Amino acid sequence: MNVIVLGAGLVGSPIILDLAIDFDVLAVDFNSKALERLEGKRNIKVKKADLSNPASVSELVSGADFAVSAVPGSLGYATLEAIIAAGVHAVDIAFMPEDVLRLDGLAKSSGVTVISDMGVAPGMSNLLAGYAGTLLDRYESLEIYVGGLPKIRTWPWQYKAVFSPADVLEEYTRPARLVRNGNVVVLPALSEPELIEIEGIGTLECFNSDGLRSLIYTMNVPDMVEKTMRYPGHSELMRVLSSAGFFDTKPVEVGGQFISPLAITSKLLFSQWKLEAGEQDLTAMKIIARGSKEGVSKVISWSLLDMYDLETGVHSMARTTGYAATAALRLIASGLFNQPGVFVPEAIGRIPACVDFMLNEQRSRGIIYRQTVAG
Amino acid sequence: MNVIVLGAGLVGSPIILDLAIDFDVLAVDFNSKALERLEGKRNIKVKKADLSNPASVSELVSGADFAVSAVPGSLGYATLEAIIAAGVHAVDIAFMPEDVLRLDGLAKSSGVTVISDMGVAPGMSNLLAGYAGTLLDRYESLEIYVGGLPKIRTWPWQYKAVFSPADVLEEYTRPARLVRNGNVVVLPALSEPELIEIEGIGTLECFNSDGLRSLIYTMNVPDMVEKTMRYPGHSELMRVLSSAGFFDTKPVEVGGQFISPLAITSKLLFSQWKLEAGEQDLTAMKIIARGSKEGVSKVISWSLLDMYDLETGVHSMARTTGYAATAALRLIASGLFNQPGVFVPEAIGRIPACVDFMLNEQRSRGIIYRQTVAG
Repeated sequence: MNVIVLGAGLVGSPIILDLAIDFDVLAVDFNSKALERLEGKRNIKVKKADLSNPASVSELVSGADFAVSAVPGSLGYATLEAIIAAGVHAVDIAFMPEDVLRLDGLAKSSGVTVISDMGVAPGMSNLLAGYAGTLLDRYESLEIYVGGLPKIRTWPWQYKAVFSPADVLEEYTRPARLVRNGNVVVLPALSEPELIEIEGIGTLECFNSDGLRSLIYTMNVPDMVEKTMRYPGHSELMRVLSSAGFFDTKPVEVGGQFISPLAITSKLLFSQWKLEAGEQDLTAMKIIARGSKEGVSKVISWSLLDMYDLETGVHSMARTTGYAATAALRLIASGLFNQPGVFVPEAIGRIPACVDFMLNEQRSRGIIYRQTVAG
Repeated sequence: MNVIVLGAGLVGSPIILDLAIDFDVLAVDFNSKALERLEGKRNIKVKKADLSNPASVSELVSGADFAVSAVPGSLGYATLEAIIAAGVHAVDIAFMPEDVLRLDGLAKSSGVTVISDMGVAPGMSNLLAGYAGTLLDRYESLEIYVGGLPKIRTWPWQYKAVFSPADVLEEYTRPARLVRNGNVVVLPALSEPELIEIEGIGTLECFNSDGLRSLIYTMNVPDMVEKTMRYPGHSELMRVLSSAGFFDTKPVEVGGQFISPLAITSKLLFSQWKLEAGEQDLTAMKIIARGSKEGVSKVISWSLLDMYDLETGVHSMARTTGYAATAALRLIASGLFNQPGVFVPEAIGRIPACVDFMLNEQRSRGIIYRQTVAG
């Protein structure tokens, strides 16, 4: 069977290498450098192409059995639409701003299975949140804490990522939607900071971020929150920059030129926040679902602490995002999940056999979600 | 006798009002708003003029007995040169970047007395540092701590001033020159932060700044340092912005435009750091001179804690700067100091009668430098 992977960046690249174990993979990117690193590897073909044109996406994917879309968020919707229209099953991690479920009708009529938002968070967080629903008959609350961090903390930011600073800054500016007492509540980004202890790391700080996404509408849970974790001190600097206007997109006039402060800020932070090859990182996540089963209170939690892979040099943020996506692709390929339509991960989470498959696939790559159930 | 005051801003304005008690004052500024507030007051005439043209300065000052230059630093040197050439005695608080002593020859040949850099710091700090030299026969070290602060501390900056943010940012970027073991040492701005207790305020934080100016060359003291005081936490944010490039003057390219990050930063901070009319502030200064007299160790210190004037609404930063300048002008007018030449305040400080005059003038305006001598 063959898979086309659109996007061969820091996250796309480990996806391609992982799928090449048992698929014929065509890796597509606009960046020749990214493709050079993959060229000539077993089961991998590479192709340079501009993915911002949906017509060329259609042409590229036609004939493929499966596709993984790891393109930038801004290209996500049009790319996925083209894949579905071409009749190709797909897993998507593009983190698009649009509502992906608008493509459900097209997927159904095309007989195509799509699992969307299938990274670590969103992704595994949604899947396990959905799975918790099968273990409870009364689902009272859901808390998700997640953070990708450099192993070495360097002043002043103590932060680096495999993602672009522009995408990270989005988390610091986009108002956070959460659910309280059954109502959707919108709070400022970076709000309600608190300290949290994470085994193996120590004390982190977390704050509201807009990471619940589809969970807000698909889960009937009266209290839900997602918080982003950073080393203590980082979020205070982000609040300072934000309140002082450094994240403003509205252009200000300086010496006759009009420029958005956010554009300057992104430019300055770009190199400072970039996780370089060989620079170790980690991914921490904690999911806590509270409720009861047959009248007995239950707290079901999952903890993930994944580290940079010293052997392969694959960053943890890329591993946890990418291998969730490859597990989902194998889930579709295995026939275990093959309903036509667009599915968010919590939908897959409601099927215990699919959850087992997803967790086992990742466990075999060293990504371990430790489950605890307390009475 | 008549005085012309060039510059009628937040500092120039109280100077004008103070001099109008016993002089005929001509207030000159390019800003009509600034002049409107003074127009019609007893002994005050106003004139709108562009002070960036030295020829018009010459014309304006000719015929005056005395002048005070309170123009922006960038205009300082040319303005003072024009005043001296016109044969007018002057006090200068323009805080020019050039070496003012280059005008000494012109002043001597014109028979003009000039006291330069005559604010609070530089200004009274230099004067008292010089005075300490008359009380010691072995002068071992000099420490100056100074800060102008808003009374109310507001997150995140806890800072506001009567000066322009661009001038304040200079303090955070210009390398600090200090003297250690008899050598001039250049350290980064904002370096060597430490906590300091100030009676009546509590704990402040201070860091190296480039405030010794002429003291470096005029005083033969082996250890000299000037530190700027701010509320704790402020300097850390300045170090973050500085290290991240937000104070860089070198333009960066953003979307085809080239812009200096410092220009954006100044623009954003301008309104956030501006002390508004009626907003209370304070000025704190501590000067510590160590050495010995006739073989006995001596520590001579001066403390200043000046508050916003609730009655007149004059900011403390304007009072302490402006009334030091008006005291110096009266010192010249009184005939107590009338040598031709350009003098920095430490030169005046070597004449005890002049120091008494300066301290008494300010004391009568509620600005009190408390002297302590410890054995």
